Amino acid sequence: MALKTRNDYVASLSRMNRRVFIMGEEVENVADHPLVRPSLNACAMTYELAQQPAYADLMLATSGLTGQRVNRFTHLHQDTADLVAKVKMLRLLGQMTGCCFQRCVGMDAFNALDSVTFEMDQALQTEYHARFRRYLGHVQEHDLVVDGAMTDAKGDRRLKPSRQADPDLFVHIVDRKPDGIVVRGAKLHQTGALNSHEIIIMPTQTLSEEDQDYAVALAVPADAQGILMIYGRQASDTRRLEGGQLDVGNREFGGHEAVIILDDVFVPWERVFMAGEYAFSGLLVERFAGYHRQSYGGCKAGVGDVIIGAAQSLAQYQGTDKAAHIKDKIVEMIHLNETMYACGIACSAEGKPTASGTYLIDPILANVCKLNVTRFPYEIARLAQDIAGGLLVTLPSVKDLTNPEIGPYLEKYLRGVDLSTTEARCRMLRLMENLTLGPGAAAYLTESMHGAGSPQAQRIMLARLTDLEGRVQLAKRLAGILDRPTQ
Amino acid sequence: MALKTRNDYVASLSRMNRRVFIMGEEVENVADHPLVRPSLNACAMTYELAQQPAYADLMLATSGLTGQRVNRFTHLHQDTADLVAKVKMLRLLGQMTGCCFQRCVGMDAFNALDSVTFEMDQALQTEYHARFRRYLGHVQEHDLVVDGAMTDAKGDRRLKPSRQADPDLFVHIVDRKPDGIVVRGAKLHQTGALNSHEIIIMPTQTLSEEDQDYAVALAVPADAQGILMIYGRQASDTRRLEGGQLDVGNREFGGHEAVIILDDVFVPWERVFMAGEYAFSGLLVERFAGYHRQSYGGCKAGVGDVIIGAAQSLAQYQGTDKAAHIKDKIVEMIHLNETMYACGIACSAEGKPTASGTYLIDPILANVCKLNVTRFPYEIARLAQDIAGGLLVTLPSVKDLTNPEIGPYLEKYLRGVDLSTTEARCRMLRLMENLTLGPGAAAYLTESMHGAGSPQAQRIMLARLTDLEGRVQLAKRLAGILDRPTQ
Amino acid sequence: MALKTRNDYVASLSRMNRRVFIMGEEVENVADHPLVRPSLNACAMTYELAQQPAYADLMLATSGLTGQRVNRFTHLHQDTADLVAKVKMLRLLGQMTGCCFQRCVGMDAFNALDSVTFEMDQALQTEYHARFRRYLGHVQEHDLVVDGAMTDAKGDRRLKPSRQADPDLFVHIVDRKPDGIVVRGAKLHQTGALNSHEIIIMPTQTLSEEDQDYAVALAVPADAQGILMIYGRQASDTRRLEGGQLDVGNREFGGHEAVIILDDVFVPWERVFMAGEYAFSGLLVERFAGYHRQSYGGCKAGVGDVIIGAAQSLAQYQGTDKAAHIKDKIVEMIHLNETMYACGIACSAEGKPTASGTYLIDPILANVCKLNVTRFPYEIARLAQDIAGGLLVTLPSVKDLTNPEIGPYLEKYLRGVDLSTTEARCRMLRLMENLTLGPGAAAYLTESMHGAGSPQAQRIMLARLTDLEGRVQLAKRLAGILDRPTQ
Amino acid sequence: MALKTRNDYVASLSRMNRRVFIMGEEVENVADHPLVRPSLNACAMTYELAQQPAYADLMLATSGLTGQRVNRFTHLHQDTADLVAKVKMLRLLGQMTGCCFQRCVGMDAFNALDSVTFEMDQALQTEYHARFRRYLGHVQEHDLVVDGAMTDAKGDRRLKPSRQADPDLFVHIVDRKPDGIVVRGAKLHQTGALNSHEIIIMPTQTLSEEDQDYAVALAVPADAQGILMIYGRQASDTRRLEGGQLDVGNREFGGHEAVIILDDVFVPWERVFMAGEYAFSGLLVERFAGYHRQSYGGCKAGVGDVIIGAAQSLAQYQGTDKAAHIKDKIVEMIHLNETMYACGIACSAEGKPTASGTYLIDPILANVCKLNVTRFPYEIARLAQDIAGGLLVTLPSVKDLTNPEIGPYLEKYLRGVDLSTTEARCRMLRLMENLTLGPGAAAYLTESMHGAGSPQAQRIMLARLTDLEGRVQLAKRLAGILDRPTQ
Repeated sequence: MALKTRNDYVASLSRMNRRVFIMGEEVENVADHPLVRPSLNACAMTYELAQQPAYADLMLATSGLTGQRVNRFTHLHQDTADLVAKVKMLRLLGQMTGCCFQRCVGMDAFNALDSVTFEMDQALQTEYHARFRRYLGHVQEHDLVVDGAMTDAKGDRRLKPSRQADPDLFVHIVDRKPDGIVVRGAKLHQTGALNSHEIIIMPTQTLSEEDQDYAVALAVPADAQGILMIYGRQASDTRRLEGGQLDVGNREFGGHEAVIILDDVFVPWERVFMAGEYAFSGLLVERFAGYHRQSYGGCKAGVGDVIIGAAQSLAQYQGTDKAAHIKDKIVEMIHLNETMYACGIACSAEGKPTASGTYLIDPILANVCKLNVTRFPYEIARLAQDIAGGLLVTLPSVKDLTNPEIGPYLEKYLRGVDLSTTEARCRMLRLMENLTLGPGAAAYLTESMHGAGSPQAQRIMLARLTDLEGRVQLAKRLAGILDRPTQ
Repeated sequence: MALKTRNDYVASLSRMNRRVFIMGEEVENVADHPLVRPSLNACAMTYELAQQPAYADLMLATSGLTGQRVNRFTHLHQDTADLVAKVKMLRLLGQMTGCCFQRCVGMDAFNALDSVTFEMDQALQTEYHARFRRYLGHVQEHDLVVDGAMTDAKGDRRLKPSRQADPDLFVHIVDRKPDGIVVRGAKLHQTGALNSHEIIIMPTQTLSEEDQDYAVALAVPADAQGILMIYGRQASDTRRLEGGQLDVGNREFGGHEAVIILDDVFVPWERVFMAGEYAFSGLLVERFAGYHRQSYGGCKAGVGDVIIGAAQSLAQYQGTDKAAHIKDKIVEMIHLNETMYACGIACSAEGKPTASGTYLIDPILANVCKLNVTRFPYEIARLAQDIAGGLLVTLPSVKDLTNPEIGPYLEKYLRGVDLSTTEARCRMLRLMENLTLGPGAAAYLTESMHGAGSPQAQRIMLARLTDLEGRVQLAKRLAGILDRPTQ
Repeated sequence: MALKTRNDYVASLSRMNRRVFIMGEEVENVADHPLVRPSLNACAMTYELAQQPAYADLMLATSGLTGQRVNRFTHLHQDTADLVAKVKMLRLLGQMTGCCFQRCVGMDAFNALDSVTFEMDQALQTEYHARFRRYLGHVQEHDLVVDGAMTDAKGDRRLKPSRQADPDLFVHIVDRKPDGIVVRGAKLHQTGALNSHEIIIMPTQTLSEEDQDYAVALAVPADAQGILMIYGRQASDTRRLEGGQLDVGNREFGGHEAVIILDDVFVPWERVFMAGEYAFSGLLVERFAGYHRQSYGGCKAGVGDVIIGAAQSLAQYQGTDKAAHIKDKIVEMIHLNETMYACGIACSAEGKPTASGTYLIDPILANVCKLNVTRFPYEIARLAQDIAGGLLVTLPSVKDLTNPEIGPYLEKYLRGVDLSTTEARCRMLRLMENLTLGPGAAAYLTESMHGAGSPQAQRIMLARLTDLEGRVQLAKRLAGILDRPTQ
Repeated sequence: MALKTRNDYVASLSRMNRRVFIMGEEVENVADHPLVRPSLNACAMTYELAQQPAYADLMLATSGLTGQRVNRFTHLHQDTADLVAKVKMLRLLGQMTGCCFQRCVGMDAFNALDSVTFEMDQALQTEYHARFRRYLGHVQEHDLVVDGAMTDAKGDRRLKPSRQADPDLFVHIVDRKPDGIVVRGAKLHQTGALNSHEIIIMPTQTLSEEDQDYAVALAVPADAQGILMIYGRQASDTRRLEGGQLDVGNREFGGHEAVIILDDVFVPWERVFMAGEYAFSGLLVERFAGYHRQSYGGCKAGVGDVIIGAAQSLAQYQGTDKAAHIKDKIVEMIHLNETMYACGIACSAEGKPTASGTYLIDPILANVCKLNVTRFPYEIARLAQDIAGGLLVTLPSVKDLTNPEIGPYLEKYLRGVDLSTTEARCRMLRLMENLTLGPGAAAYLTESMHGAGSPQAQRIMLARLTDLEGRVQLAKRLAGILDRPTQ
């Protein structure tokens, strides 16, 4: 059976020799670091739930490669039911962790690479597809977490990769050898990188011929020679180091981001899935982005459920949950949250098979999904803060709450509808702070904005994918205008 | 074959002896009246497209009752594919007519009555379901248009039906006879009533025991004794009477609304589907509303396509279509339009079978769909007016355009990018005026607000359908709060 | 005394020999035409209220030219109190008429021309300022209504005036004679033109040297040789011709728009205020637009008050005015309406004197004011339609209401909280229809969008007027970044 | 001269014997504590700028009590120019500090107490006004910072103060003595409390007779016997403790919040300004809230300027500042920011004198101002995060940037348009993080929501202050409805 337990997962990470820096220091046992552990817990939830029969339909799938039951995070979508199940799985995990659980990036990279390598082979007589599927078989067999690394450093946004002052600002091939290639550069914004066994590198944008060395896709172990990872710090992250779980809000779970430096990393051909085929770079970006824009309709709706629950809970503690305006705000939060989810479901249900047989989401609806995700979480968070009250940003620390002199005062004065609610209210306020102003907000808000492409990227896709001239013809027909070609 | 042609449809209406008043006068041949004809054209499009092989998948379905191919507007949804096809059919019709084509109300009433009569029979040992299915067989066989009449006059909204100053302000049974019942009252806001062969009457809200005589569902021919229909006038409607199609904007198509008076109408038992079973009134309203809220994700997206096309067209005529801010507004319109559609698709794809076997939409997502429809068309219309420019409300009449003295001036000065665009631009402006300020706006905006229930109705449903306490538990688990029951 | 009565105003218009076309026919007595009369009533309200002592502070001002009391609509603003009073006067008139009363355009043109001619004279040793002030003295003495005509036909928006296929698509000087100039072209979107004694022509955009013949500002009587006016039709306008005031909604008042054709109109030098000074064209446009963008913070807030009142009234008739969600929507309408007004007040209170002594609004805040006006009325109208209910677009005509057979049915079924409310409710619904879907909406919505410049014009001004680099420096100082020049 | 220097201010605070707890420990020299110092710097800016001639007009005023020049923060507004100057002063300070500078609460309390004590004396023959003015003379003379403490603990929001399970959940008089009163309770959300010389206590809501002991207003020194202050922690606050200014974002400035415990504090009559006059409690709350809602139109616009500058700066560093969509987002941020400011100016310019001579803002417009402030900063922050890019939440720490092994990698890969921008870009990202996700966001977002009352409080005021029936009459007049009284 190809499924790891949570413990096996953690142990397997610990066996790796990765180079990781956190807050200026190199860290030996990454998995035990208190700034990483919560994110590891979140990622490990993808293993835990896969072991629970109640969630088997969502968490497991039958591999199209082997017929074995595999974790859905390593699965190629075989039909629209798979696409829908993915969204529901992500919502479930968002609900259970209240944060980003990181593993969908690899899944989205697998599905994108599968169809693109197939089409590339057909067009260019390359042999990437079989190679990629062999690699994926390995991933499924060992139930691996794979980081999908796309975003380059980019430097001056007005310039193409090879025109940058420093040619390394986009990852590129610096050497081609008989047994493989050598790449250099950096990938930014690598969500959950420190919890991954492997890294898939992909180009970050459509490339032209002059930038063909930048058209590179490959997989490397996270502890390959030449790879450095640097932890990106987020709001309130060091509360994890203080001891005392109350102030961190989300006790067990969290996320992290990292910069990955690729300092002349060698990759054998067996793990290279694109090396110079610039004409397919745009397609790979688009496919990956399409899947990943779908993902947000699941995971962020799951985190939204937690925020809605936290807001309702705070209202109950304060005795305001029956007030008409509070109920109305809760309904508005639900409405916005379900709209995002609806878009995730719709782009899945309207999916179509690609040439390789793997199913692709409907690209218009997936872009619509993500574009809503760049807006609604911010409004949900705003409404949640409205309901939560000012104590969200004025609450003393847990050390005050437990101080023998002032603790009793706080116990007395911070109570809500009854005394038993004081601590619960404080805990819930810290959870809400985490999600709307702290590290949780980095994922729920900022990452909703920029993950899978910033909103302008979705807008450009909508402009490109929509048959605007067809709509012009609809209008002209109704208006009684003879069809003359417009300029 | 159970499918009528367009001509047969029109002829069948003409054979009826309906009593219809338009602008204070009783009208003999309703179908030929210029204020009704455009709406008839729109409804007839549901027959026309059903004859075209290209649209057969959307327009036709295999009846679950007879196995025959029937118009989808008379069909009981057999699976989620049927639910999805319904939404796509409605979008297509919205695109082809640029208005409300009226026939979905009956379809939604059929599907709601099917499952509710089944469940009523199971609970109360009544015999409504078989009766209803016989009736539906008749509808399918003759390919009828059936109005679904729900909204009562309501009077003072604070009072229950029987507490109103006038007991007739809600339709109710005034006599029960051996062979049938007699009903009295009025149904307001009856979209497309003048194009219907039949009328299905349903209660408008959840009723309690004291209002059991108001718990009545039935079907009557539109020309039954005691039925009067009164045309509701809308913005700019009489431009249809002026001659000269340009000023009407949407040349061929339109909608209409009517008040239906039920002045002691007798209905034989064979056509009665609820008569006193007040406990099932709420369920019927909810089921019908659920289907109808789904509908809006299709038809309004179709009209939205027309508006987007009209806006783009006007920008082309003026030479502004390449301006960044115009392109951005077009994208925003697309985004909002597709979000509504996505919600329509999602609530369909997530449909589930009812006890009768007929499929029901996902109720949360259907309410979310409609709630978005109460907002986004207004914003789309606003953006469309932004792109259209002020000429939208300052354009002289077609009589000026064709006047020998001033026509040439207008031809000269109202041109856009070239002379050939003057008339086309005027036509397109009138279409846009129709859709955002005229009779088209009555359907695209106001009916989007109130059709299938006003936004507050959707909000109440969202509050009721959402497992809010479950979300509270999610938050408490993450915050580390022991599960004590909250008050 | 320089103040006309309402009757004198109407009589003075009737004495003019203007050439006006309405719906394809030339009209003799324009002021009596039923399509024009309501707009005349609205404009005449600027005379009526000026006669009432209660409104003297707002309606009258002491002329800076003569020391006489004049109608504020002919006044040059002497201080910020004048600017504030203007906004309040416009709100009052919006409240009293529920529509556009048209006379502010001239007022805004006067104030713009005053400072621009002064500065032009200073820079170029021209003599326009004294000439303009003589002209304004004439306007004040005779208490005239003057149309301010700015918007040209424009043709292809990508091309400058002289590059258009037809050089007349922008108004320009076609001949310069010893005693005056001859101009040709057309001005579109001329609000209230048919109620004006005079027309002030101004350029519509910043011009360069090659377009110097388009840099022309002047005043002509509305009945000058070569001027034609063509009425622009709007939604539901012909209801005015049906007899029976109920269906028109706003019984007495309305607006109108017109195209003005200038077919080689001669203008003596004494009435020419710019003729070739292209370098000042942009300044004139900007000054006029600034004043006019301020205006919208007054008049539209006044109409907003009417819509809020109509919505509240409809809620009362239906018995829903105490429902929490209705009250909340009313508050939201008030909030948006007062925000527009606040911006109008703020740009006035922050006004500064120009070189000529005449006060100018704060340009940033005036553009902010107008930009809000391109949004909030649409949302207010949406909320109003939400409260009004579906009857807004399904109500039968007054001829049905008074028909002996069906009138009693409608009286019975359209009642609200009591029988006495049936007719009132119908009247109020028609007023709301007028304001949100009919001719009132043309002014309240579309004209709010495009009048005084479309929203993009305001955005461009905001970008230009804001000291963005100063804000960058603020941020850099706080972030501790050394001040190096940015590129 | 009554003006303190910055140093005198800090020294005067240091001389006080306050009891302050921070993170569970009692702190001796509060002003030197690194978690407090930045907020002290911000508050001290109100002294620094008052010493600079360039800002004298805004920062200083001529006391209506003594004729001396005093810091405007201790001034009673003598006219609308004072009210306008206040808003401009607050915007200036927001620009200079990028955070809350805390001192306006006292100013708003002074102005509220001045008119309310006057009116209370008139109605009840009490002697509070003279007493209050003597106290204010002392404040002006010593140029003090005074905290205005209003918000009580509140417990169960459904219950009145005396009905709470614990009577101390609202501050109340527990003893009345010949020489003064004793009060007990707590005030939450005390912005800047640790930087104040004095505390003014006010009731938090309208009280009825049974709660008359809760109707208490007074002033106490911050180090009075029985007062404890407890620091409220905020996102990322402990970065101030790490050393290395880069990660804190806003190097020098910040805010803080505190809980103030009043454990049987004695207050001599000379400092008591309300003691049982419950009928004036609501008026005091309303006046204070009115002034404070005005304040937000200044300070938050000032912080908004910093965010706009930071966003523009980040766009410049990345080379995206010329992209159309970026420019458009900057304009939108400006628009929203200036709308808030416009409301602040408008409610000031429309101010009116109270009976005591002190000027009061226009209450409708002040509530409108604050209600916009509960929305627009969230949207501005969202747009700022859009422009800033994902690096906002993935940037490594300053310790990584300066680490000898990985620092050079980060220097290489985090550059923008040129190498010199790497550090600047990181600094600016941290400033933006501070303002939209960190401690700055607590003030810019959450405090904008709840400070001076949560949005529902503003909505209730708008409902109460608006003449809704007058608007109904406007609509009825236009609709031609006879004036019958409505129910």
